Amino acid sequence: MSSSSTSLAIAEKETPLDNIEQLELLPGVYDNYEGVIVEMKDPMDPNEFGSLLRASLSQWKQLGKRGIWIKLPIKLANLIEVVVKEGFVFHHAEPDYLMLVRWVSETTNSIPANASHRVGIGAFVMNSNREVLVVQEISGKFKGTGVWKLPTGVVNEGEDICEAAIREVKEETGVDAEFVEVLAFRESHRSFFTKSDLFFVCMLQPRSFAVQKQNSEIEAAKWMPIDEYADQPFVKKNSGFDYVAKVCLAKSNNYTGLSAIPTYSSSGKKTYLYSKLDI
Amino acid sequence: MSSSSTSLAIAEKETPLDNIEQLELLPGVYDNYEGVIVEMKDPMDPNEFGSLLRASLSQWKQLGKRGIWIKLPIKLANLIEVVVKEGFVFHHAEPDYLMLVRWVSETTNSIPANASHRVGIGAFVMNSNREVLVVQEISGKFKGTGVWKLPTGVVNEGEDICEAAIREVKEETGVDAEFVEVLAFRESHRSFFTKSDLFFVCMLQPRSFAVQKQNSEIEAAKWMPIDEYADQPFVKKNSGFDYVAKVCLAKSNNYTGLSAIPTYSSSGKKTYLYSKLDI
Repeated sequence: MSSSSTSLAIAEKETPLDNIEQLELLPGVYDNYEGVIVEMKDPMDPNEFGSLLRASLSQWKQLGKRGIWIKLPIKLANLIEVVVKEGFVFHHAEPDYLMLVRWVSETTNSIPANASHRVGIGAFVMNSNREVLVVQEISGKFKGTGVWKLPTGVVNEGEDICEAAIREVKEETGVDAEFVEVLAFRESHRSFFTKSDLFFVCMLQPRSFAVQKQNSEIEAAKWMPIDEYADQPFVKKNSGFDYVAKVCLAKSNNYTGLSAIPTYSSSGKKTYLYSKLDI
Repeated sequence: MSSSSTSLAIAEKETPLDNIEQLELLPGVYDNYEGVIVEMKDPMDPNEFGSLLRASLSQWKQLGKRGIWIKLPIKLANLIEVVVKEGFVFHHAEPDYLMLVRWVSETTNSIPANASHRVGIGAFVMNSNREVLVVQEISGKFKGTGVWKLPTGVVNEGEDICEAAIREVKEETGVDAEFVEVLAFRESHRSFFTKSDLFFVCMLQPRSFAVQKQNSEIEAAKWMPIDEYADQPFVKKNSGFDYVAKVCLAKSNNYTGLSAIPTYSSSGKKTYLYSKLDI
C-alpha cells in the first residue's frame, strides 16, 4: 500500500450547468478494487476532519468507490471517534495504528477478512548420530519443569515458514541448518482471545554442530539422543507432543513430508508451496 | 476470556500505618499470567475514566501484574484517546472492538504476537470417474475469464481447516464430502496490508454427487474430467496453480498427504494434528 500525499487533494466536480466547484478531500489513494485508502499522518482538528471526511465520502460514492479505508496512527487516536461516527468499523490494528473501513457501495461487501491465525514453528534438527537438538527455556510454560523441547518460535511478519525455522534454530542454539521439509502441522483455537494458532513441525538438516545457547530466552541447549527425547514423561503423557515425537522418530523409516517449492502466484508474486516432491 | 463485572471493583489497600483506604478501580479480571483484562461495557466520562485508569494501574503495578489489557467496544471509541495517553498501544481489533495493552512490569515483555495470517482452503473433490468438482464465481478475480476453479474459501473464526473444506464444498456445490487429507499448502505475504495468507489444498471424498450451485457467489458448478481441469490455459500458465493441479493428478499415483488426527494439547484442549498416518 503506497503512502498518500500529505497535502489535501483537490477534486473537480462538474455541476449540471458546467460550473466547476473545487472540493477539498482527504488524501486518498485508489487501489485496484475500487477502494480508497487514506493514511493520515498529521494532526487535524476533529471537527475539520469530520467535515472533510463527509465531503470525501460523498465524492467517492459518486465515483463508484466501494471500500473506504482510513489508517490512523496511534498519535491521532483523537480522530477515531469522528471516523466511527461516519459509519466506519474497525478492521485491524497493530501497536502503532488502527485501520478502519466502510463499505459505501450497493454491491456485495467484499472487505477481506482479518488475520485469524498466528503461525509458529518447531524445528526438528537431527544429526547423523540420531541426536536431536533440544532446549530448555528460561521463562514460559516449561520453566522449571526440566523438560527438553524442540526449538520453537513465532514467525515474523512477512517471514516464510522455512526461513523462520532456520532463524529460530540459529538464534536459540547457534547451529546453522538447512530447511528440509514440513513433517506435520497442528491447529488450535482460542489460543489467545478469539485467534487461532498454526504450528508447523519442520525438519532441518544441521550444517554445523557446535551448540551455543542464546542467553536471553534459553536456559540450556544440547544434542540429545532422539529416543531419550521421546521418552520424556511429559512428551509421553501429552498426545500432541507424543505424536510429534513419533513423527520425528519415523523420519528414520522413510517418512516424507512436504518440501518448500518456490512458485509464482497469478499476480507474479513469489510464494512457497509446500508439497511432496515426487509428483 | 471471561467478561468482567459491570460494577466497579473496590480494592483494599493497606498503608504502612495499617489504615485501610478504599480505592475505586476499573473492573479487571486476572488471568493466569499475572495479567489483568478490563472489558468496558458502559459509557463513562473520559476524565473520570482516566482517573480510574491511573489509580488502577498504580494498584496493579503494586500487585505485581504484568500485562494490562483494555477492551473497548466501538461504541466507546471516545475513550481510546484516554487509554493511549496512559501509555497503552493497540494490540488487535475486530469490527466491533479494539484491544489495547500495556506492559507494566520490569520483567521481559511477553505480550503475545497478534494474528498475522489469514487461512483459506481449496477443496479437491474427485469422484470415481476421475472428475473433479469445479466452480465459476460470480465476482472476484476470475469473473468473466471462463476459468473453472476448485471450490475455495476462508476459514471462519475458530473453525478447523478440515471442517472449512467440507463446509465450502457443501455451500458452493451442494455436494456432501468427507475430509481425507491435506495435499499441499501455500504461503504468500503482503496479501492484504502487511498480513500473510496460508492456503491449504485439501482432498475430500464425495458422499453425494448431485451438484447444486449456491446462488449468491457461484455462477456455475459441475464435475469436470481432471485432465481437462489441469489443461486449462490459465492453470498451465500459472506455476502455483499448475503445481497444485499436478499434486491433484498425482493422487492417482499413491501420493499421500497429511491426515487430520485429533490430539490433545498440554492444557487438555483438543487440537488437530495434520500428519501422515503411517508412522
